[in-house]
Amino acid sequence: MKVKIPDLKKLLATKFVSSYYTVEQAEQMAEVLMYAELSGKNTQGVMKLIGSEPMQNVKPKHAPKIVKETKLSALIDGGGNAAPLVCQMATEIVIKKCKENGLAIVGTNNTFASSGAIGFYANKMAMNDQIGLVFAGSPGGVSPYGGIEPLFGTNPIAFGFPTMDEPLIFDFATSAITWYGLVRAKSLGEKLPEGLAIDSDGNLTTDPEKAMKGGAILPFAKDYKSSGLSFMVEILTGPLVGGTFATPDGSGDWSNLFIAIDPNQLVGTEEFKKKCSELINIVKNSRKQKGFDEILVPGEKSFRIRKENEQKGEIEIDDKIMGELN
Amino acid sequence: MKVKIPDLKKLLATKFVSSYYTVEQAEQMAEVLMYAELSGKNTQGVMKLIGSEPMQNVKPKHAPKIVKETKLSALIDGGGNAAPLVCQMATEIVIKKCKENGLAIVGTNNTFASSGAIGFYANKMAMNDQIGLVFAGSPGGVSPYGGIEPLFGTNPIAFGFPTMDEPLIFDFATSAITWYGLVRAKSLGEKLPEGLAIDSDGNLTTDPEKAMKGGAILPFAKDYKSSGLSFMVEILTGPLVGGTFATPDGSGDWSNLFIAIDPNQLVGTEEFKKKCSELINIVKNSRKQKGFDEILVPGEKSFRIRKENEQKGEIEIDDKIMGELN
Repeated sequence: MKVKIPDLKKLLATKFVSSYYTVEQAEQMAEVLMYAELSGKNTQGVMKLIGSEPMQNVKPKHAPKIVKETKLSALIDGGGNAAPLVCQMATEIVIKKCKENGLAIVGTNNTFASSGAIGFYANKMAMNDQIGLVFAGSPGGVSPYGGIEPLFGTNPIAFGFPTMDEPLIFDFATSAITWYGLVRAKSLGEKLPEGLAIDSDGNLTTDPEKAMKGGAILPFAKDYKSSGLSFMVEILTGPLVGGTFATPDGSGDWSNLFIAIDPNQLVGTEEFKKKCSELINIVKNSRKQKGFDEILVPGEKSFRIRKENEQKGEIEIDDKIMGELN
Repeated sequence: MKVKIPDLKKLLATKFVSSYYTVEQAEQMAEVLMYAELSGKNTQGVMKLIGSEPMQNVKPKHAPKIVKETKLSALIDGGGNAAPLVCQMATEIVIKKCKENGLAIVGTNNTFASSGAIGFYANKMAMNDQIGLVFAGSPGGVSPYGGIEPLFGTNPIAFGFPTMDEPLIFDFATSAITWYGLVRAKSLGEKLPEGLAIDSDGNLTTDPEKAMKGGAILPFAKDYKSSGLSFMVEILTGPLVGGTFATPDGSGDWSNLFIAIDPNQLVGTEEFKKKCSELINIVKNSRKQKGFDEILVPGEKSFRIRKENEQKGEIEIDDKIMGELN
């Protein structure tokens, strides 16, 4: 059904407020989920509030707290709160410290479940004229190159850059498919596309259940390089931020790393934004391969979907999902 | 022929000293090239000093100079000096500023030719108990996803992490093959492996000449994600550091970005190193796929080659190359 955007946002906030969160916290979390939903990344949107473990129903252990802080950094113990809340807090801190000092780094650990579409946080930094880097760690699901065990999370990376126009946001999982992709295929009784996952013997499988039970998802390019990138995120969101890491039994928690860079530390903000826009224009106006109507720059597709939805003022949400939400 | 390591290093330094560089500068540059040569990355090694445009024969325009500096950052105009010299300077500065402040960022532009194996600089940071990120930009050779024009450099990325043992170094090109890979295949009259490059019409080609003349190398996984990573490096080594970018005619210069992070800003150095080593051990001891005798962590292969060469105290260099060097 079509749902008006403010109504959907209010509904989400209401769900959070009815559980363990204040009005302000609820709005912060709703903002993160709305960004994903409006951007067409609906597995990171309102769906997080339904199903077997709705985000709002998990009782936090304690309020998020900064356990270590320097002028340029903060380490946040999420206290088992929903990750979008803790990551909003982290983003606010990293932006503030970067504004004051030029560079900043903030880590979070011990949050409940996925931080959502991490491009959201990178976008916030870019909207503040900062370059944002965001890394998200999760319990194991992906095997390293040559291995069978699901030691790495699906470990997405997001970059955000301010430009003369809208920020350029590149947000991608280092895995060949998301964990939710397996869950969804399994619940629909569908097979996976070829070559994305292995079973517990290390053989390629299209059976999502075999991949989930003792098998693993492969790194996105099924090679040494993409496996290495997944490894990098495992280090940056595990050892560096006091998060869990390499948990093949899925017992790990979720953790994140945020890095903000003020372009004024190097060429200067205006120069940087101008040149970024130039680069984007050159790429977009360059010659295309057969079969491509246009060259899309990173994040352009989901940006367009978001703007379109915002202009229409409403969004299509599956009836069944709305039923469960209401 | 077999060459003793100190002799080879001395020979390299001599070559630099005999042209435009001081003894100290020559030693710094020789150190970078020796790292690559000893690590088995011989296209980044002594080969840089022979051929049609030997690195030491290009006259610098002026001494490298810091054109902008803050407590946490520096921007260096390389003045047309050989990139390994300028990048050694950048690495020294980024390490010093990171030691003093916890985070640091340094950019270089206007250097002559490739900075060599950028894992070398990441390794230096890691040897100083810092996390090192290095990005290298070069004139266009790689097409964006869906495009034909060689707008991006081969754009390698290196990460370096301190551990309880040797640093973990991940150093990879975001392209499917290096530019030198094309040059080499062409000069030997060999075909390229399938699927790495396109011709000027955007069709896959195995002819290195067609790829070099109006065609392009593909991003490493020939997909949206690896193209996006190449794009990220283009921004970080172009617009952010005052380097050239998107130069399909090969007229661009070379530029680099260095970021250093002190783990003490977050969990603490000892904790970080301990956990990194734990993670590496878990990965190495996990179950292997058929056909894999062991799981290699990023950089492990070239590290072993380097240690082996260092223990032997000598290294095999092609007779023809030694002839040209002498």
